Amino acid sequence: MTSTARREARITADPDVPLIRIVREFDAPRESVFRAHTEPELVAQWMGPRSVENRIDRWDCRTGGSWRYVSVHEGQEYGFYGSFHEVRPNELIVQTFTFEGMPDGVALERLVLEDIGGGRTRLTATSLVDSFEGRDAFLASGMEVGVNEGYEKLDELLARG
Amino acid sequence: MTSTARREARITADPDVPLIRIVREFDAPRESVFRAHTEPELVAQWMGPRSVENRIDRWDCRTGGSWRYVSVHEGQEYGFYGSFHEVRPNELIVQTFTFEGMPDGVALERLVLEDIGGGRTRLTATSLVDSFEGRDAFLASGMEVGVNEGYEKLDELLARG
Repeated sequence: MTSTARREARITADPDVPLIRIVREFDAPRESVFRAHTEPELVAQWMGPRSVENRIDRWDCRTGGSWRYVSVHEGQEYGFYGSFHEVRPNELIVQTFTFEGMPDGVALERLVLEDIGGGRTRLTATSLVDSFEGRDAFLASGMEVGVNEGYEKLDELLARG
Repeated sequence: MTSTARREARITADPDVPLIRIVREFDAPRESVFRAHTEPELVAQWMGPRSVENRIDRWDCRTGGSWRYVSVHEGQEYGFYGSFHEVRPNELIVQTFTFEGMPDGVALERLVLEDIGGGRTRLTATSLVDSFEGRDAFLASGMEVGVNEGYEKLDELLARG
């Protein structure tokens, strides 16, 4: 059972521009990984660290759509929102991202899914912001816990088919 | 008549991140400059160089809305589209921007309007992309013609009240 092996996402800071790049592989076809990003009832199940519950207000995952969700951690609510700039089925999602606790911050995010054979998929997610300070503060915030626990939950969701 | 003086927008390349910054002042209150960016029939009248006609397909300028327009130059059509991440009346518009001729390119744009007294407004527009090469190619493309002619048309529109 390959899916029991713990995998870490590769998280790197771009040397030239204020961008974070996350690469992670999944034992599931691209269509399934894509669907887990576009259907709100699936997204709510895996996104973020294990310590939070997600409540999705809207998730209109199509070119020109918008989204908002709330993560609940020990009774505290944290809101996030943005818009879907472009959605190409099974291939690409380009979206914006703001944490409502920092309302003047915004990231431009790009998710690319590649078929790497054998029913497996490589996900590459980039997040671009307008300052190295902001990017590096986010990297130092412990964000890798949410990324890795979220993708482990996504592994589990995909394994359930 | 102050409005007959030709003004150039100040267009600068950020030294640290792949961002362009445009600063321009207008002899009109913030509410009027904002409305000229949000009402599609006004936007169509001033956006871009004098040599083009704009046809707006959609311009839903609110948080979570989307937009698309076509510029017609000598019979050729050039399409542009994106989404409105956030719109704060009279203050701020954050949006995405793609030229359909380069469908994998996307910019994150931020428009800030400041009241500088005397019924005048300072507009600061930034455009962030993910590479210096892309940013510098855009700066070298003659984009300042479209920016300056567009803002001259906007001066004229604002002067008509």
